[in-house]
Order: sequence, then structure tokens, then C-alpha cells
Amino acid sequence: MTTRGALKYEGKAKRVYATDTAEEYVVEYKDDATAFNGVKKAQIGGKGAVNNAITAHLFPQLEAAGIPTHFLAQLSETEQRVRAVTIIPVEVIVRNVAAGSFSKRLGIEEGTALARPVVEFCYKSDALGDPLINTDTAVALGWATPGELDRIRELALKVQAFLVPYFAARGVKLIDFKLEFGRTADGTVILADEISPDTCRFWDAQTGEKLDKDRFRRDLGGVEDAYNEMLRRVMAPAGT
Amino acid sequence: MTTRGALKYEGKAKRVYATDTAEEYVVEYKDDATAFNGVKKAQIGGKGAVNNAITAHLFPQLEAAGIPTHFLAQLSETEQRVRAVTIIPVEVIVRNVAAGSFSKRLGIEEGTALARPVVEFCYKSDALGDPLINTDTAVALGWATPGELDRIRELALKVQAFLVPYFAARGVKLIDFKLEFGRTADGTVILADEISPDTCRFWDAQTGEKLDKDRFRRDLGGVEDAYNEMLRRVMAPAGT
Repeated sequence: MTTRGALKYEGKAKRVYATDTAEEYVVEYKDDATAFNGVKKAQIGGKGAVNNAITAHLFPQLEAAGIPTHFLAQLSETEQRVRAVTIIPVEVIVRNVAAGSFSKRLGIEEGTALARPVVEFCYKSDALGDPLINTDTAVALGWATPGELDRIRELALKVQAFLVPYFAARGVKLIDFKLEFGRTADGTVILADEISPDTCRFWDAQTGEKLDKDRFRRDLGGVEDAYNEMLRRVMAPAGT
Repeated sequence: MTTRGALKYEGKAKRVYATDTAEEYVVEYKDDATAFNGVKKAQIGGKGAVNNAITAHLFPQLEAAGIPTHFLAQLSETEQRVRAVTIIPVEVIVRNVAAGSFSKRLGIEEGTALARPVVEFCYKSDALGDPLINTDTAVALGWATPGELDRIRELALKVQAFLVPYFAARGVKLIDFKLEFGRTADGTVILADEISPDTCRFWDAQTGEKLDKDRFRRDLGGVEDAYNEMLRRVMAPAGT
């Protein structure tokens, strides 16, 4: 039994609570959705439950694949128990296909396959719109050490190596995804945050249909259906 | 005697001409100044001559410091003979102090010293506003190979190691600078373009006065005087 204590942090899509032990937090997934850096806001019914369930299903498999994560146990439909970490303010984006801000910034048509995965670092700052940075900048400004950034890149590419075939076996093309990492009390870098339709671009492998937060960002409709469909596919055995 | 042939390329600040040998070009420096990606345009009297002279003075010293460059000889007040290269469309910015787009993007006050030099890569594209990229992106989109990017970074840091004390000995703080590299016919990566008040931020070491293109960008006045002052300092012996 985990006792939920004081609210430690509230983000756009989750709340983080203290527990009766300093080493663990409770994360609560919200239905709140924001886009364009908070300019667009709404609720997506059932989103918190879907993202909690998908993350709770994937993180133990990533752990088994050699990627240390913060996940400990699912507590309820919208809550999970995690290892306490300090989030490193460097978001990691791994891209397999040009889309979104990458397409816009570089004038590359959305849907263009990349010759190899692109790992990007962004500074986690709502006020600045999560600007693109590089490793020199992260080190010079004290956000992470060179060793941490090497480890983050290595782990991000391990996550990529696990997720691409996992989703392919379930009829989903993984276009890109965002990861966040944290430091435990002893300084170990582990995967934190979530993996969900909020943080990934998922396209149906057959039809190209978007099954992720772009349905909300771009007013495509069927947002809840897309999230539920992704939950169904993540939970399904490979090849079904 | 170098015969200037057909115009090969015209940029915002220079024209490049063919010569009677395929291995060499003539570069003509213009007085035209643009800022904010061509939105602001003017002429800066004598700029072409100043930038030609500064580059012609510095590049042989960089060559002597182990940095291969395209520079061969100054031909006239505004022209120089250079090795023919294909410009690699990855601009390199080396930053010692936060300023300009870096300050704006990351919310770091202009003038903040960086704990270590930051090397940034941008995609050379007027249409896109020279967006920030990283090595993965440059490789995935075919703009340069990993080996070329390693070499470019190595050479950029060698240029930095030469220029910082060079300017310090002449009462100038080198805030940041932009470099471009090219490939010769045999694929060797060499320093191309220019080093001048158009491509560097120079602040007077005592007063902090700007002695570079920011005087034009920000309507500070005294643009020609600043360019002439930088020419004088570059040509002066150390410590004078």
C-alpha cells in the first residue's frame, strides 16, 4: 500500500506526489491535453488511463531489455509508483521519419524517411518552447555532464531498438518519440516520464492514419478512439 | 595574373568567379550588408575592402597554425584568389559568450560567459533562416559525413584556439564567430568563406563596445568606424 503524500510537481499531463519513502514517488496521469506550448488546451477523455496503462506495459519490457527505468508498479487506473528522480532538463527526441517541428524547421516533407535515426536534445522549458540544443550547450550551461549525455544517447537508441520492432509487429510505424531521463539520489541516469500517444508519433503501418496526439494538435477528430486503439495494439501479442 | 571568368555564385556579401584553372576561384567582397535573413539591407562603405583585408591577413596565419584554408592571395582591395571548393551546407558557430540568437533562444542574458566553448551547426539555407541542426541531422540528410563533421569540429576549435588570444592581444573579446568549410576536388575539408566583422562578434575588451555587424543589425550607428577600427586592430602587432 502506497500512501500518496504532498504534491511535488504538476506538469501539463501528470502530477507527481511524494510518498512515505524518499526513494519513491506516485505519478498521476491526467486527461489534460495541451499543444503549441500550452496555447491550445482541452481534456481527452480516458487519456490519463491509456497513457498510464501503455507506460506501465512498456517500461518493464524496456527494463528487461537493459534500460533502467523509474517504473515500479501500476497502482490504479491513472496512477503508478516510480523511483524518485530529479528530471534532467534535456528532452530527447528520436526521429525515424521527418514530421512536426523537424519538417517545418528543415523544409523536409512530413513522411520522408530518414537515412538513419536522428537523436535531438531540447532544453526542457515551457517558457522558451523547449528549444533545440546540442551537447556542448547542455554541458556549458550545466544541465548535464558529457558522461550523462553519452549515457542518455546510448539509452535512447536502446529504447529505439526495442520500440521500432515492437510497434511494427502491431501494425504501427514509430515516426518519432520524446524521452525524459532523471537522476536517482546516487546519480544514476534512468528513463523517466512516459511513452504514450502524447510523447510518440504513431502512424498506422497500412493506412498512414495518425494514432497519436497530432489528432488533437491538428484537429483531426477521433482523438479518444486513436488513444484507445493504441492501447489495444500495445497490449496485443505481436503479429495480431 | 588571374583572369576573372564567369560568375559562379553570388551570396549576400560576396561574389565568386571562375578563373582559367578549375582549381581556383576569385572571391569579390561586396559592401552590401543584410541582416535578419535579408529583411534589412544596406551598403556599408568600405566593408568589402575591410573584410577582404582582414581575411587575407588572418587566413595565412591560420594555415601556419595547421588549419588548411582556401586562401591563396589577395588580388586587389576587394578581391582574393582562393582554392575552388564546394561549400558544405553546414555553418559552424563557435561561442564563448552568450549573445544574439543563442541568448534569445535559451533565455541567457547577452554577455554571460559560457563555461566552455559551444560549437553549433546550422543548415546553410537562406530560405529556412539557417536553422540549428546537429550531427545526426547533417548525416541523415546527406549534408556531410560523420568524418567530415568530426574534422570540421576539430578545425573550428583550432581556429578558436588561434583567434581568442590573437584578438585578446589587440584589446578585443571574441564573443562568437561563424565559419564555413568546403571540399576540394579530392574531398579534403578546408576552411573557406571569411573571418570579419560580418561573421564574428567583437567587443572592445575595456568598454564592451560592439565592433561588428551588430552595429548595423541593431542600428547602433558608427558602422563604418567599427569596421575600420577592427581592421586597424587586426593589422596591429600584439599588445598595441
